[in-house]
Amino acid sequence: MLYDIDVLAFDADDTLWANQPYFDQAELEFQALLSDYADKETLERSLYAKQMKLLELYGYGVKPLTLGMIETAAEVIPSAVPGSILNRILDIGKELLEMPIEILPHIEETLSLIAGKYKLIMATKGDLVDQVRKLRRSGLKDYFHHVEVMSDKKPENYRNLLRRLEINAERFCMVGNSYPSDILPVVQIGGKAVYVPFHTTWKHEVYTGDAMLIDGRRVFQIDDIRKLNELLF
Amino acid sequence: MLYDIDVLAFDADDTLWANQPYFDQAELEFQALLSDYADKETLERSLYAKQMKLLELYGYGVKPLTLGMIETAAEVIPSAVPGSILNRILDIGKELLEMPIEILPHIEETLSLIAGKYKLIMATKGDLVDQVRKLRRSGLKDYFHHVEVMSDKKPENYRNLLRRLEINAERFCMVGNSYPSDILPVVQIGGKAVYVPFHTTWKHEVYTGDAMLIDGRRVFQIDDIRKLNELLF
Repeated sequence: MLYDIDVLAFDADDTLWANQPYFDQAELEFQALLSDYADKETLERSLYAKQMKLLELYGYGVKPLTLGMIETAAEVIPSAVPGSILNRILDIGKELLEMPIEILPHIEETLSLIAGKYKLIMATKGDLVDQVRKLRRSGLKDYFHHVEVMSDKKPENYRNLLRRLEINAERFCMVGNSYPSDILPVVQIGGKAVYVPFHTTWKHEVYTGDAMLIDGRRVFQIDDIRKLNELLF
Repeated sequence: MLYDIDVLAFDADDTLWANQPYFDQAELEFQALLSDYADKETLERSLYAKQMKLLELYGYGVKPLTLGMIETAAEVIPSAVPGSILNRILDIGKELLEMPIEILPHIEETLSLIAGKYKLIMATKGDLVDQVRKLRRSGLKDYFHHVEVMSDKKPENYRNLLRRLEINAERFCMVGNSYPSDILPVVQIGGKAVYVPFHTTWKHEVYTGDAMLIDGRRVFQIDDIRKLNELLF
């Protein structure tokens, strides 16, 4: 069980609300849009490679996807990219920024059960403006004492966050759907973590290292967010 | 003189380092690139209109400029945008993200004079990843206790920042080059401010309201950052 916790931090995308399904859908649309110029696998490979490069410059979120789609289009249509295709790509990006916020099942009841007993933080990667707007649209804002949009989720990013908020790592628990971003780095700096897998995961967030550490002492895995409450009480 | 201050916050772009000259240069390049398709004024007007719309979705920084340039190109070249133009626009955006960090004159000596006596904060708009990277590249990072990348600089954004950092508004002073973003909103929430104009200002940050409030009690204007030190001691 999760003892001696003061602060619970929640990842946002695919932990509080659905996100990846909309990105998957956007990529399918992009592949259909360019199907006259390149096959699905070529587009997928090219877009992913461009996104990985753009991540370094632009961080996570919709913008590197939009720019990656434009770069890929310029690559597979070398002469000139029809305005209709360019505008459709720009619209796919804008639509992602306006995606419906579909709160995942039992999130709200769980947050309301634990909000009075723990200090709750939302800790997410992605674009500052976009994530703040999604939180506001979600209606979940008032559950959180603090919102942190992180440029990355490496151990040093968590260490900085805890130092700044004056939180002791042992009394901190991160809840999220990405093992490499939400679980492993937190455990590495001495914190605790609850892994709640989501049905679809972006390739970049798929864990490919050694066996996952799920020890039932510092690291837990649950398939239903309601079980978080059982772990805590 | 500036009495009773505990915390000094510095804007970053065009306050600590040069920024707008690189954006101005990027826009000139963009206009030259599309000069066969539209005149300078049309491009300027179209790009600014698109940027204003994109700001709401994407926040401040390089990305809304890059996407605005692409949208403008798709508008003035309606059939198909040559790949060479598209790639050059994408490169202009990337070059902005890698612009040299040219620290403004006397910033470093001023920061080092006041750093031990005040808590220093960097408070900037723009893109999280980009601003954090620029600060790291600037070599100024160690002067600052806290770095805040804000989604906007409205009174409520400053109010939230001060609340979170437990800073009393009367003991807070903002230093920056944008009257509407760095000075007015801080004064409106009861803080103090030092206005340091820069030789070029983005249209969006040009103040067009009533006469500027420069009262020499809560709001000061200086033409040389070294005078900040004189105000403080």
